[in-house]
Amino acid sequence: MAVNDFIRDNKDRFLNELLDLLRIPSVSADPKFKKDVFAAANFVKESLEKAGADTVEICETPGYPIVYGEKIIDPTLQTVLVYGHYDVQPADPYELWDSPPFEPVIKKTKIHPEGAIFARGSADDKGQFYMYVKAFEAMMASGDLPCNVKFMIEGEEEVGSDNLEKFVIENKEKLKADVILISDTHMISMQDPSITVGLRGMAYMEVEVRGSNRDLHSGTYGGAVANPINVLCDMIASMKDENDHITIPGFYDKVQELTAAQRERLNEAPFDLNEYQDKLDIEAVHGEKDYTTIERVGIRPTLDVNGIWGGYIGEGAKTVLPSKAHAKISMRLVPDQDWHEISELFENYFKSIAPKSVKVKVRAHHGGAPAVVSDSSVGYKAAEAAMEETFGKRPIPTREGGSIPIVALFQKELGSDPILFGFGLDTDALHSPNEHYGVKNYFMGIETIAAFFRQFRKLTDK
Amino acid sequence: MAVNDFIRDNKDRFLNELLDLLRIPSVSADPKFKKDVFAAANFVKESLEKAGADTVEICETPGYPIVYGEKIIDPTLQTVLVYGHYDVQPADPYELWDSPPFEPVIKKTKIHPEGAIFARGSADDKGQFYMYVKAFEAMMASGDLPCNVKFMIEGEEEVGSDNLEKFVIENKEKLKADVILISDTHMISMQDPSITVGLRGMAYMEVEVRGSNRDLHSGTYGGAVANPINVLCDMIASMKDENDHITIPGFYDKVQELTAAQRERLNEAPFDLNEYQDKLDIEAVHGEKDYTTIERVGIRPTLDVNGIWGGYIGEGAKTVLPSKAHAKISMRLVPDQDWHEISELFENYFKSIAPKSVKVKVRAHHGGAPAVVSDSSVGYKAAEAAMEETFGKRPIPTREGGSIPIVALFQKELGSDPILFGFGLDTDALHSPNEHYGVKNYFMGIETIAAFFRQFRKLTDK
Repeated sequence: MAVNDFIRDNKDRFLNELLDLLRIPSVSADPKFKKDVFAAANFVKESLEKAGADTVEICETPGYPIVYGEKIIDPTLQTVLVYGHYDVQPADPYELWDSPPFEPVIKKTKIHPEGAIFARGSADDKGQFYMYVKAFEAMMASGDLPCNVKFMIEGEEEVGSDNLEKFVIENKEKLKADVILISDTHMISMQDPSITVGLRGMAYMEVEVRGSNRDLHSGTYGGAVANPINVLCDMIASMKDENDHITIPGFYDKVQELTAAQRERLNEAPFDLNEYQDKLDIEAVHGEKDYTTIERVGIRPTLDVNGIWGGYIGEGAKTVLPSKAHAKISMRLVPDQDWHEISELFENYFKSIAPKSVKVKVRAHHGGAPAVVSDSSVGYKAAEAAMEETFGKRPIPTREGGSIPIVALFQKELGSDPILFGFGLDTDALHSPNEHYGVKNYFMGIETIAAFFRQFRKLTDK
Repeated sequence: MAVNDFIRDNKDRFLNELLDLLRIPSVSADPKFKKDVFAAANFVKESLEKAGADTVEICETPGYPIVYGEKIIDPTLQTVLVYGHYDVQPADPYELWDSPPFEPVIKKTKIHPEGAIFARGSADDKGQFYMYVKAFEAMMASGDLPCNVKFMIEGEEEVGSDNLEKFVIENKEKLKADVILISDTHMISMQDPSITVGLRGMAYMEVEVRGSNRDLHSGTYGGAVANPINVLCDMIASMKDENDHITIPGFYDKVQELTAAQRERLNEAPFDLNEYQDKLDIEAVHGEKDYTTIERVGIRPTLDVNGIWGGYIGEGAKTVLPSKAHAKISMRLVPDQDWHEISELFENYFKSIAPKSVKVKVRAHHGGAPAVVSDSSVGYKAAEAAMEETFGKRPIPTREGGSIPIVALFQKELGSDPILFGFGLDTDALHSPNEHYGVKNYFMGIETIAAFFRQFRKLTDK
């Protein structure tokens, strides 16, 4: 097939271009990388232009811009909207990376015998959205683009997509499409391809506990004045009971309970607990009582401390009774929990359990709604057929623990279920040191995307 | 009196010399200040020589040196041994200082209307041990040194005095004295002078809790894999019960319970709870049930987290499920708790409460024994008389919450109770940002020390 020939003929270039993109440290959470985030937006714009898009714009927002591009071959034909993000998670702690996070290298691993690209953003999401740019280029170059295509690549996904909602609402007509594709999730394995049909939502909070108005000597005051770290630990501990059930009143009120049959089907996905534990080097998993690991991640909400700090954290010992302690705490949510409501329940509860000896502050960072997408839409069927074509196996529908808050936004504002067409693996160390993305996954993804366009055209043509 | 005249005539110089010493950032806990700690030792050596000591040596140890100096006017006369330390606590967090911690400035405060010196180490302990150097100089200059004097000024007090014990044991003859003076504690106020007769001991631990072998994506793994921060919070929370009683088995076994009469006497010291709370800007104190604030600090052991860290602590939000969490935890001890034993009880308990889903590490930083010193020795009587002479009021014997582990060492190895002759105030922000020491306290201290020498000679001369 001409498209696949073009992909094969341009393999080195397709890979090197991605490495160039990965060299830009576009960390949206940290203002010191501001220039780089803008540079990444520009890189995306130029890539789309070179690939053959007619219109490409950098759409400014109060934060980082959204890159929009399109190729309308025939207004009467179907249109595919692609969403991705060019920003990446912070790379800290840097010392745990085997190679610098923004100097991509390709190394073979047990799971990726043909090599994987090690770099922050390789899988999340530069390596994945860039597959669409290259598939598009290959289809254009071989004269075989079967549908219209629109790109919307944003730069604030890792910090809550604060400006995307407004953009989507204001540009509904421009973004109109018959199907939305997002590759920002993972599949089970190269042998067991899968398509995500459920995602968790999120509410991300930051708290401060203050004891005295200044750091104190732990000898002179210890035992008599509240230690905000001890108090914060008490408060965090009291947010879960002995079954790891979250104790915030009302927290589970809107959680959809699955039927026994649904839970059974969910647990049919291939999963080996020993292998899972071995890979993480843990002796036991840890989670809510009476749920399996697949369920704990797929259909149950969580409360995790993502960061904690207070007092003296340098070398050696300092006998300080600190004035303040802080924590970043996020909750993954499931349908039909509402993140605004959960943020409020958290705040009220946190304030209610604070002892009189401290003052507390709570603020919500960002959040997003959980989502379940249909596995019977035409788009899903086309994705299923495309994966079957390239992987030789029908993909399994799965529920993933991560959050892509914009899925619910697209459902609401653009009126269609996005296809969560992930090609990475859960072992690719997303958000961790040594994030990587299989070279084979990258090229299989490009081919599968091209196959999707053909299948979608076929299934929608009457 | 000639001595006091000399002190008054040299006021500016006495103050400026202290400021020079305070400019040396001799932070023993942080290796990056190594050069400065040695520089401070040298400063002490030169000061003693200038003041009139005969022999001054910098005694090397595997860590920071001990500065020894002496003036033996007559071997048949009484000898006073002075102990102090030239190292200081780390100054972090720097941003909370109103002026840089190693650029001393003098500012008036409500409690110090005649001005206080703001600098790290101003009260703990440079400003206090340096009073002895100046009192010694004044007595020498005015031909009025009534006893022999020996100085032992170390550089590792803030990191556990690791090398002092060996030095003391190996130099018992050299250090032989009739009384030991230490000014490293505080008094109640300028209106209510006091002498410390009890100090708490300490066991300082550091713990690590590890979940998975790498940082994980909190979406993909959250809810299914142990979060070491949540686990650490649970573990810390479970180390105290609802009455703030420490739950480590055996922890209280050796705690001396005071009689009702002893507790009553202890609570007779002037103490205003509202004023205490106002100064700290807290709405309530926080401590062990059924004990007063004075008791919680003076006669009860504690367990305080001095530092905690884990996960993402930068700006913004990162949805990481971290691999590790850490805490520095210290326990203040009271007679007859043994810090080696308590460190072991802590370690065993911490390991016993760790869930199977994590691995924990525990290490002991340093520790020291609690101490109670006699209020009926000749040395104590001389100190009492000296304070009455300068402050016009008989000092109150008090128990302080801090720790000076070497007190117990001196009792054991040198066979005498040191006099804890502190002139700072508990509001001087020791170990905190904006540490300061009253200019008046400094000079009153110098005069009182000179008075002590006279009183001690008088009371011991037959």
